[in-house]
Amino acid sequence: MNKPDLFSIDALNRQPRGELVKASLEAARQSKSIFTRLYPDTAMAAASYADSLQSAGIAPVSALAGLPVSIKDLLDVAGETTLSGSVVLKNEPPASADASVVSRLRKAGAAIIGKTNMTEFAFSGIGLNPHYGTPANPADTQVARIPGGSSSGAAVSVASGICVAAIGSDTGGSIRIPAALCGLTGFKPTARRVPATGALPLSTTLDTICAMSHTVRDCILMDSIIADDALTVRHLSLAGLRLALPQTLVLDDMDQHVAPSFAQALSRLSAAGAQIIELPLSILQDYRPLGMFSAAEAYAWHRNLLAEHEDGYDRRVSRRIKLGAGLSAADYLDLHTARKRWIQAMETELLPFDAIIMPTVPMVAPEIAPLEASEDAFFAANALMLRNTAAINVLDGCAISIPCHAAGSLPVGLSIAGTANSDAHILAVALAVEAALRQ
Amino acid sequence: MNKPDLFSIDALNRQPRGELVKASLEAARQSKSIFTRLYPDTAMAAASYADSLQSAGIAPVSALAGLPVSIKDLLDVAGETTLSGSVVLKNEPPASADASVVSRLRKAGAAIIGKTNMTEFAFSGIGLNPHYGTPANPADTQVARIPGGSSSGAAVSVASGICVAAIGSDTGGSIRIPAALCGLTGFKPTARRVPATGALPLSTTLDTICAMSHTVRDCILMDSIIADDALTVRHLSLAGLRLALPQTLVLDDMDQHVAPSFAQALSRLSAAGAQIIELPLSILQDYRPLGMFSAAEAYAWHRNLLAEHEDGYDRRVSRRIKLGAGLSAADYLDLHTARKRWIQAMETELLPFDAIIMPTVPMVAPEIAPLEASEDAFFAANALMLRNTAAINVLDGCAISIPCHAAGSLPVGLSIAGTANSDAHILAVALAVEAALRQ
Repeated sequence: MNKPDLFSIDALNRQPRGELVKASLEAARQSKSIFTRLYPDTAMAAASYADSLQSAGIAPVSALAGLPVSIKDLLDVAGETTLSGSVVLKNEPPASADASVVSRLRKAGAAIIGKTNMTEFAFSGIGLNPHYGTPANPADTQVARIPGGSSSGAAVSVASGICVAAIGSDTGGSIRIPAALCGLTGFKPTARRVPATGALPLSTTLDTICAMSHTVRDCILMDSIIADDALTVRHLSLAGLRLALPQTLVLDDMDQHVAPSFAQALSRLSAAGAQIIELPLSILQDYRPLGMFSAAEAYAWHRNLLAEHEDGYDRRVSRRIKLGAGLSAADYLDLHTARKRWIQAMETELLPFDAIIMPTVPMVAPEIAPLEASEDAFFAANALMLRNTAAINVLDGCAISIPCHAAGSLPVGLSIAGTANSDAHILAVALAVEAALRQ
Repeated sequence: MNKPDLFSIDALNRQPRGELVKASLEAARQSKSIFTRLYPDTAMAAASYADSLQSAGIAPVSALAGLPVSIKDLLDVAGETTLSGSVVLKNEPPASADASVVSRLRKAGAAIIGKTNMTEFAFSGIGLNPHYGTPANPADTQVARIPGGSSSGAAVSVASGICVAAIGSDTGGSIRIPAALCGLTGFKPTARRVPATGALPLSTTLDTICAMSHTVRDCILMDSIIADDALTVRHLSLAGLRLALPQTLVLDDMDQHVAPSFAQALSRLSAAGAQIIELPLSILQDYRPLGMFSAAEAYAWHRNLLAEHEDGYDRRVSRRIKLGAGLSAADYLDLHTARKRWIQAMETELLPFDAIIMPTVPMVAPEIAPLEASEDAFFAANALMLRNTAAINVLDGCAISIPCHAAGSLPVGLSIAGTANSDAHILAVALAVEAALRQ
């Protein structure tokens, strides 16, 4: 269904890292709005290290050794100020240490090409950035379409063949949405499995640091490098798997590209023996007010900064952050209580199933220009963009988006999701689903 | 220094449980304001079970098997409504299951004598209760003195010889304060080690479910029954231990009983070879605003109930709960951030020491009557009562209060405290300190 994974970590096993990283850096230099900063010296040094071990007949320090990866602009790199796609932090002191995931990438020998552009402070699923420009979605070479956000540059750095994988974050879909819109595979693990230390927060309750790449296998590999625990992902057959297809919310408003691609994907899964079970799951309707964590927690982080520098913010971001000002401590605590109850109810409903399946987003990437032009169009698209994915963040769950569109058409993502700590099982299901979709 | 531990778990090893529990229940029936409810049938059944195993030559299911213990009125018992020392919950539905710690006591074969009286909703360190009366402190048979709170009945149930141990809770000192004022040993573990499931919350951030008894060994035993993890408490010599004596806040305002008892205790510890090191620890001064968690979290829990039943509350409790109404979500989140920073600073300062030592409370138990008569006197005493202990809750630490007064004088407690998860070491230090104080 998709283009071959020429740039997957698996496929690159023997290629010299020096050439690869040099080409990657060159492409990054030529690119527009994808990167906010490049690291040519340390990236080349990582490549040389990998190549010199290879020449000496020594096993690579990891499957990622010497391979080009990117990191989202909200991750600390020692010695530089973390901007998170903004301009208001420019005069803040530099980070004293690498973010935990960055230092795990370095241990794995990854060649970190650069920091990627993003929605300012990660607070939107669209991916527009008025300060650093919006990287165009490589899936359409005719019309400039959004990459999806907030990990916009992350997705484009991989989809355009500069990096094999990108580290981003996902608070309401910020890995899965750009993965879906750019034709990539993006995995949001159970949040607590990956340390958020050294990542500029959006919502301390919902933030997940995670990765996207070209294949499920590569997502598993990235997870093994950045997560606290090593998963054992078994081989599963699709035959007999029970996949819940929620009848509430997530199938609404599919556009004319998503609906047939998703239907076609379901047929393939059925043909491969999976049971697709329509599940009413009406409580899905209740999750949306629980998304207020982001506004409440962002407002606490930003309120002093807003008082001084509101003019420097993207207005569409500051507007959402300021929604958090109206919440009392008791409202906020009630939100936690309500979330806990909702999670329990969801977990009870989902107990008999191997996973949820749904379209990651109900539409293909919209064009950039109309969304830049109209705030109303922007907020409407943003709400629709986040609708399905954010439910999984509120669930404290995990989910992976896999491409499911026909070759030549705009990318569409299919999501496989599960409850907290079902990561190994969801990835096992995803491997089986990916294989069925690619036949 | 103290009376012999005739009623310690250790000392009761061979006594038949049936007689013991019968006598305990009889004393409980005769008592005033200590218990809010008794469980004669299940207590006697637990005793008979223990005795019948003993007769058959079978080892007891735990060191607590068939021994009389009490549980605080805020713990769920299946089938009855949990009141938490209030009258406003009387028409609420009954609990569907035992609190986690109650079910752990039952597995250990404990004879649960009854539920103990407490400060309404656990929100004061004094122990007055206008609805169920205030149990008098058994240490003074002439004048009615407060037992300390909020686990007031818990302390009196042990100090008056009815129970060998009592389960209570400690959010700002509610185990350690009554232990100190009644001449008992009370251990507040690191909060997350003991499940709070089925305990009516005061502060979800600071609440700790824990126990008091007559000796450090008994506290270790209770901990082994109620905590998630089993501690290994090694034997330590006092010689060479580095005990930090903070020079900020905790030594202020000691009354004429506490000052000499505490000084005498320090001499004994020095004589036994401990190094008492005066530590400025000026950041201790900064912890008090961080105590706002209780008001904020209690207000979220109570606000609907207050709207309907404020008249039924103890005015001194509702007044404190309502302080939480003024906090915004951002204020509350800032509180968490500020606490995290304060904990890090404290942990850095305390790294070179085995433990902190300090008086648990700076005064002996005040008389009940003047505190009942004056709200001002009540709030002044309450602030002083909680001052030293609450710092350890904010620290996310653990602490044990051990009696350190001369025989015949009113009880004074010495606290040994440490940072998060130093429980095994703090208990080891406490065993050594207790031995030195008793010589």
